[in-house]
Amino acid sequence: MAVYTEVSDDDLIAFIAGYYLGDVISCKGIAEGIENSNYLLRTEQGTFILTLYEKRVSPADLPFFIGLLEHLAARGVSCPTPVRDRQGRALRELCGRPAALVTFLDGMWPRRVTPEHCLELGRALARLHQAGADFPGRRRNALTVDAWRPLLQASRSRADEVRTGLVAELDADLDRIEKSWPDGLPAGVIHADLFPDNVFFMGGRLTGLIDFYFACNDFLAYDLAVCLNAWCFEKDGEFNATKARRLTAGYTSVRPLTDHELQQLPLLAQGAAIRFLLTRLYDWLYTPENALVTRKDPLEYLTKLRFHRGVRSPEAYGLG
Amino acid sequence: MAVYTEVSDDDLIAFIAGYYLGDVISCKGIAEGIENSNYLLRTEQGTFILTLYEKRVSPADLPFFIGLLEHLAARGVSCPTPVRDRQGRALRELCGRPAALVTFLDGMWPRRVTPEHCLELGRALARLHQAGADFPGRRRNALTVDAWRPLLQASRSRADEVRTGLVAELDADLDRIEKSWPDGLPAGVIHADLFPDNVFFMGGRLTGLIDFYFACNDFLAYDLAVCLNAWCFEKDGEFNATKARRLTAGYTSVRPLTDHELQQLPLLAQGAAIRFLLTRLYDWLYTPENALVTRKDPLEYLTKLRFHRGVRSPEAYGLG
Repeated sequence: MAVYTEVSDDDLIAFIAGYYLGDVISCKGIAEGIENSNYLLRTEQGTFILTLYEKRVSPADLPFFIGLLEHLAARGVSCPTPVRDRQGRALRELCGRPAALVTFLDGMWPRRVTPEHCLELGRALARLHQAGADFPGRRRNALTVDAWRPLLQASRSRADEVRTGLVAELDADLDRIEKSWPDGLPAGVIHADLFPDNVFFMGGRLTGLIDFYFACNDFLAYDLAVCLNAWCFEKDGEFNATKARRLTAGYTSVRPLTDHELQQLPLLAQGAAIRFLLTRLYDWLYTPENALVTRKDPLEYLTKLRFHRGVRSPEAYGLG
Repeated sequence: MAVYTEVSDDDLIAFIAGYYLGDVISCKGIAEGIENSNYLLRTEQGTFILTLYEKRVSPADLPFFIGLLEHLAARGVSCPTPVRDRQGRALRELCGRPAALVTFLDGMWPRRVTPEHCLELGRALARLHQAGADFPGRRRNALTVDAWRPLLQASRSRADEVRTGLVAELDADLDRIEKSWPDGLPAGVIHADLFPDNVFFMGGRLTGLIDFYFACNDFLAYDLAVCLNAWCFEKDGEFNATKARRLTAGYTSVRPLTDHELQQLPLLAQGAAIRFLLTRLYDWLYTPENALVTRKDPLEYLTKLRFHRGVRSPEAYGLG
């Protein structure tokens, strides 16, 4: 749940007067996203999301994020589109924080994922990768392979409180993953956090992708590996091969995978699993119990990691 | 900030199909209200607030609240209007909780109150009292004079942690207030919690009243006394007589006060001050520091109580 910066009505009215959006009709803080303060804003011209960037997002990254959304929207990707003010600025300041206004996307994220959702997701992910190909901005992935060892180090002394033997198991996995992490896979802009709550659907059709605040430059197939983890396991930890097949079929129907990508996918899936395992583990150990944020179970990703560790060919994901 | 019941998209779509509202377009949890889970819902037919009643609201009171809103809306009071489903039910169940759908009100609550806001508020409060006059529902005020001694009792052992001498001061006030609390003032349905965040304005005009979950039957002038406390003091605790004059002028332009009401207003204002002082004091002492709820300073109401204690005539409020 989000922590809010309270925007006064006077400040908001003055802020919105800087756009070609007419008068403010209403403004409600919304309880989604933990990184920023988000408001659902209605003006005479329509419905928008107003975001105030709190300290977890680096101001230096904002031009990348805002520029990327404009770039993608211009290429037909259904994502929040930044609205420019009368002076042409998409990034402004409100209540002492960086602030941006983006278009509101219809739809709801799926609480119960179906294979059809996965098919739609695969297509949308591949189109996102194609649309991002000529985006000039650059942002390194702060949570890729070189970040995982320091993350484990930060949790090492207490990780076995969560599961006995966890440190030893992750050490062995990391040794292996670091040694074999690939070079030279097709790369570009990836979303890097495309979980179900960041994908909207209406009547079974994908209506939009949101929350690009982990977007960065990395291997395109790693993004697919993140989705295999986030969309294709059941609550009990079992891998749903039907969903995976639909996801990869949707993706490859738009952008075929190279042989190198196919061959590396099991390793990329292990990498994606360990990435979310490690950040959840750290948050689990170091987030106060009464904090506003709901901690997510890191062991969910241990189950996923173990599954991918046992995969010998991309066929497990419906490919190859 | 609110604690949410998470409503799944499947459950929501099935629920909304029971109304004549078309398909769901979007649904966002909103960060307003601490009593219930509130969602801002858009359907093909418009924008609504979906409320799931959490345990702080008694289910036995819901027919009173929902019936009151329907009654008031039918008489032209701008308040959330309950929407009935295909079977004529305004009160339903969703995710195991009582649930209701009401119309969305445009406007924003004023963060900086002006005398003009107070004038509009006074008029709207009097119209609310008139519109409620023939409402057949009954609900006693659970937080009126007979509840204050038990509330003080519950905080007694720790109240002096907040301010030395607080218990003795409140004991003396309560003795006096209980002895002189009036009988036989004009009574009816009151809002009982009409703070600025429950009143919406747009372009300086009052557009609606919300949050009727303290509404009950009590003295009408007590509602005005609550507003004098909630709207007419500055942040530093100083009483703004200009705002009070506008508030009471707005009220009496619609519904003149009787001599008995005028004469009792200073005491009612003390009562309203001690009511909010006591509930805030209790919450201050017994709400965990890390809880989701922002605790409000009880001593703000000690300053207000002391002001009203020194008032000798309704002239202080611009009346008489």
